[in-house]
Amino acid sequence: MAQLQRLAIAPSQLHNEQIMLATEQQHYLGRVLRLREGDRFIAMDGTGNSWLAVFLGNQAQVLESIVVGSELKVPVTLILALPKGNGFDEVVRCCTEIGVSCIVPVLSDRTLLQPSPQKLERWRRIAKEAAEQSERSIIPTILEPIPLNQALATATAKHLYFCVARRHDPHLQTVLPLSTTAEIAIAIGPEGGWTTQEIESAIAAGFQLVSLGNRVLRAVTAPIVAMSLVSAAFDG
Amino acid sequence: MAQLQRLAIAPSQLHNEQIMLATEQQHYLGRVLRLREGDRFIAMDGTGNSWLAVFLGNQAQVLESIVVGSELKVPVTLILALPKGNGFDEVVRCCTEIGVSCIVPVLSDRTLLQPSPQKLERWRRIAKEAAEQSERSIIPTILEPIPLNQALATATAKHLYFCVARRHDPHLQTVLPLSTTAEIAIAIGPEGGWTTQEIESAIAAGFQLVSLGNRVLRAVTAPIVAMSLVSAAFDG
Repeated sequence: MAQLQRLAIAPSQLHNEQIMLATEQQHYLGRVLRLREGDRFIAMDGTGNSWLAVFLGNQAQVLESIVVGSELKVPVTLILALPKGNGFDEVVRCCTEIGVSCIVPVLSDRTLLQPSPQKLERWRRIAKEAAEQSERSIIPTILEPIPLNQALATATAKHLYFCVARRHDPHLQTVLPLSTTAEIAIAIGPEGGWTTQEIESAIAAGFQLVSLGNRVLRAVTAPIVAMSLVSAAFDG
Repeated sequence: MAQLQRLAIAPSQLHNEQIMLATEQQHYLGRVLRLREGDRFIAMDGTGNSWLAVFLGNQAQVLESIVVGSELKVPVTLILALPKGNGFDEVVRCCTEIGVSCIVPVLSDRTLLQPSPQKLERWRRIAKEAAEQSERSIIPTILEPIPLNQALATATAKHLYFCVARRHDPHLQTVLPLSTTAEIAIAIGPEGGWTTQEIESAIAAGFQLVSLGNRVLRAVTAPIVAMSLVSAAFDG
């Protein structure tokens, strides 16, 4: 099944085993992926459901529901201070491939710039494409950017980690639960790190301080490293 | 010490505790980093030696040798099929931050393009900058691109891993030695993966086949994931 092309659809596009294809989806399947009528592909609704389907031009016929089995055993939320420039694109793309469930972009004391709505739309498109390409059955949710304090206050995950550099805290790898099915949330700071006040707020909100190792990682690299460790610990 | 700026120097620049600064190094310290005469910085020779030094314009005075302690306990070599486009820049940058010792770019059956000498020079500059910024004491060696078979034949590491997708091989994380000081080498393929023949050659050369998880990673993401796992296992 792995060689089949993938298409993300909205749940509302599926009725009675027929998928009504939007114009750009018809174009994508027919012109970009070069599928011909009668060719099979995998449709995924981004919430965990996937189907083997046959391309029929402006619609597709569902043949059967399939189990993809490419998701981590636990949902992982990354709370990420927005880096300057376009670095967040790469973070969203890589972390989606590695298995993140939800990304919460946060505004921190050292990165106050509020991104444009176009950026959020762009990140969501990148997450969708990366989920298709990495053969996931879930498209990660990218929330609207919020202040760090709000993200700390609303974090509902059972296991809460707050990554800090230049401190002698335990390595994330050593504190991850050996076995859990409960959500994990990991917060990672901007270039220049969190402020002391932000670290205090995180502790007060129940987050455990952790390290990602003895080298100084860029804000773009750190989330990918953290996600790699969680993914290896909780792969399906 | 962590807040001090860092400068990579060649071992030959140091004589009798004096560092003779090249013109571009003087420019970098004085104009880019805005150091004034008398300010301190950390000089590193890229082979594991670091010194606290005082900037004196066209030279610097060594105050003392310092121990940085930011290197992994084992040397790690990444044997990487060259991706298309400029993706390798990001691989070199991220893997340097995470702690790689040596990168061997390889030409595989599915990526035959021989990169220009300018590219190699560029990757070496990126590795130097990333080593400075991530506060490492070693600058990773970037070898000249060679055919995969040559890289397999000349690999001298004790622990040899060959990452493959879509196969049911053990996860890299589960096969890494629990304790070792011997070199580790990990080979990672191009977009589209290794050919069957390449996989056979790797097995014949003593490499163990491993997986990086249940999702399909891009050639840019896979080395970062592998390096993250090794780094967490062997951090200093």
